[in-house]
Amino acid sequence: MKAAGIIGPGSMLGILGGGQLARMLALAAADYGLRCHIFAPEPDSPAFDVAACHTIAPYDDTAALRRFAESCAVVTYEFENVPAATASVLAESRPLHPNATALATTQDRLLEKTFVASLGIAVAPFAPVGTLQELEAAVERLGRPSILKTRCLGYDGKGQVKILPGTDLAQAFAEIGGEPAILEGFIPFIREASVVAARGADGAFVAYDLCENEHVDHILSLTRVPARIGPSAVAAAISAAMRIAAALDYIGVLAVELFVVGEGAQEQVIVNEIAPRVHNSGHWTSEGAETSQFHQHIRAICNLPLGSARRRGARITMRNLVGGESEGWLALLGEAGAHVHLYGKDETRPGRKMGHVTRIFDMDGHDPG
Amino acid sequence: MKAAGIIGPGSMLGILGGGQLARMLALAAADYGLRCHIFAPEPDSPAFDVAACHTIAPYDDTAALRRFAESCAVVTYEFENVPAATASVLAESRPLHPNATALATTQDRLLEKTFVASLGIAVAPFAPVGTLQELEAAVERLGRPSILKTRCLGYDGKGQVKILPGTDLAQAFAEIGGEPAILEGFIPFIREASVVAARGADGAFVAYDLCENEHVDHILSLTRVPARIGPSAVAAAISAAMRIAAALDYIGVLAVELFVVGEGAQEQVIVNEIAPRVHNSGHWTSEGAETSQFHQHIRAICNLPLGSARRRGARITMRNLVGGESEGWLALLGEAGAHVHLYGKDETRPGRKMGHVTRIFDMDGHDPG
Repeated sequence: MKAAGIIGPGSMLGILGGGQLARMLALAAADYGLRCHIFAPEPDSPAFDVAACHTIAPYDDTAALRRFAESCAVVTYEFENVPAATASVLAESRPLHPNATALATTQDRLLEKTFVASLGIAVAPFAPVGTLQELEAAVERLGRPSILKTRCLGYDGKGQVKILPGTDLAQAFAEIGGEPAILEGFIPFIREASVVAARGADGAFVAYDLCENEHVDHILSLTRVPARIGPSAVAAAISAAMRIAAALDYIGVLAVELFVVGEGAQEQVIVNEIAPRVHNSGHWTSEGAETSQFHQHIRAICNLPLGSARRRGARITMRNLVGGESEGWLALLGEAGAHVHLYGKDETRPGRKMGHVTRIFDMDGHDPG
Repeated sequence: MKAAGIIGPGSMLGILGGGQLARMLALAAADYGLRCHIFAPEPDSPAFDVAACHTIAPYDDTAALRRFAESCAVVTYEFENVPAATASVLAESRPLHPNATALATTQDRLLEKTFVASLGIAVAPFAPVGTLQELEAAVERLGRPSILKTRCLGYDGKGQVKILPGTDLAQAFAEIGGEPAILEGFIPFIREASVVAARGADGAFVAYDLCENEHVDHILSLTRVPARIGPSAVAAAISAAMRIAAALDYIGVLAVELFVVGEGAQEQVIVNEIAPRVHNSGHWTSEGAETSQFHQHIRAICNLPLGSARRRGARITMRNLVGGESEGWLALLGEAGAHVHLYGKDETRPGRKMGHVTRIFDMDGHDPG
């Protein structure tokens, strides 16, 4: 009963990475009768607990990667910093979705910004920084405040230094380890937002409602849906995500993080970065949309029809439980209408994402926050 | 942070049985950071694929049962025919929810009917049948049509013979193997329905909206919610479930299957049987209620607060995919708003439950069927 290219019930999916995103992908895959093989170096990976099998090995263990890929019908990943060599080994054996181009482009802030800008989509002004002299020239051009970021391997605010009036540039450059970097002009944004969307193998594109995001210490704290953003900026954001996905020949769920600047008729969106995977700002879709981002990603990489992204509920919030915040889990379970997700991580550490809680409001009313 | 008796994140739950109910329980447990250990004799049990660990052993392997129980904080089960000896071995080591009384009562149709009737709740007229002579006397008293059922181990219509005008009683008695049986008077029901509800360790009781059920060949085919049943019969049904749960000192989700007879002011409910577990007629709650029956059962057995049973959507249907019906899975995935669940069973067999699909209708409208 299988159409060409369709990956159906009974098949094995490979997921690189064993954290909460892999865990929630595996839970979604199970709804479609699919089995998961998780590959991760950490022996206590939360995704192992809900998968048919797992491999504990480093991401540069070529033999282990090959055995892993060969056990699967398709391979995906939960993090964008998959080494190029790892992606290449996997892609030799099996379809890798999203593809290596998406990985390479989103791993490097300079490539990423150049790529997005080349599509005619607004990004923050930027300049490559390889030396202190280049940093000085870039700060001269982009001004202060601006932000110095390593080109690779940054997330949740790691590998970033703010260049403020008075910041010593030599010290800032040393702080990021003198690695290849990029200077980004500061965007005086009113809100942060994201588009979570999926593109299928047939080019079908489905976007969820725009997410409005609040970060604390560079870590996502709260997502609100729908975002308080006007229709033309929303349309521009979704169009940007669609063009980005098409240009990457993307298959799967992606998130495009945005700054919203200006108000009223001046409101516009600026692309900050692309995550080639399911995204924390899309967690609300588990209860808040017809098809969760996790189900949607599984559908896309298995060449199944994409599902409806329709919102369920007038307003929705998703709050991360970071570090000690997860200690309130019992009270949250007692709160009517709160949907609690705990990731089964053994150890609570400051800044570690331990779970999240989604609240759905049927009527417009007070600000749930 | 754990209150007394609370089973929280990181704990291991034991589930006896490895079918789709165990699988969906394990998926729900994962949302609360809990891990599952599945015990089942079949090496290809669908629940194994989503659990942290599993034991393949027969239900009378005392040593394996003991090791299993000792690895868990609490033990539950997905089927009511757990042998008494098995339940007893498990309960020696760990809390077993629902308890052995619930199992013993619901395993034996005669005990079950006697118990329900003793609570002043209407049941079909019944008589114990141990011999052909007793069958003849019972048919004399209850009339034809009536139904001869084995006292134990019947489900999905197995172990049942209809006594119609002209049915040879000796042959009917032989057909059920001459086992201890019960004759039940025929109820000319208008609809079949069920109450799916949960009772917590603290006595809290939460019922979902009444489910209206259609069976084909004795197998559940379609559940509609809300049931087309008037408010006083609904109240009587929920009250019956509440009294049954309280009398059994029940902890967990249970289903009470009902016949609806009469119309208008004459409408009333008659209890048919009790399932001491999550139930097929409650599958709609995964997308159709604030808290699914699987999450609710996990909450109850872990001594966590019960969740809201509020319906999400004006009307909901859940259709089973039985045997070859599951071959339509791809088309169902393409249907907007259809929530498809496939159980990952290796082999499609006639009469085997392979999956289900839930549809949610926001507005009252045409009959979705």
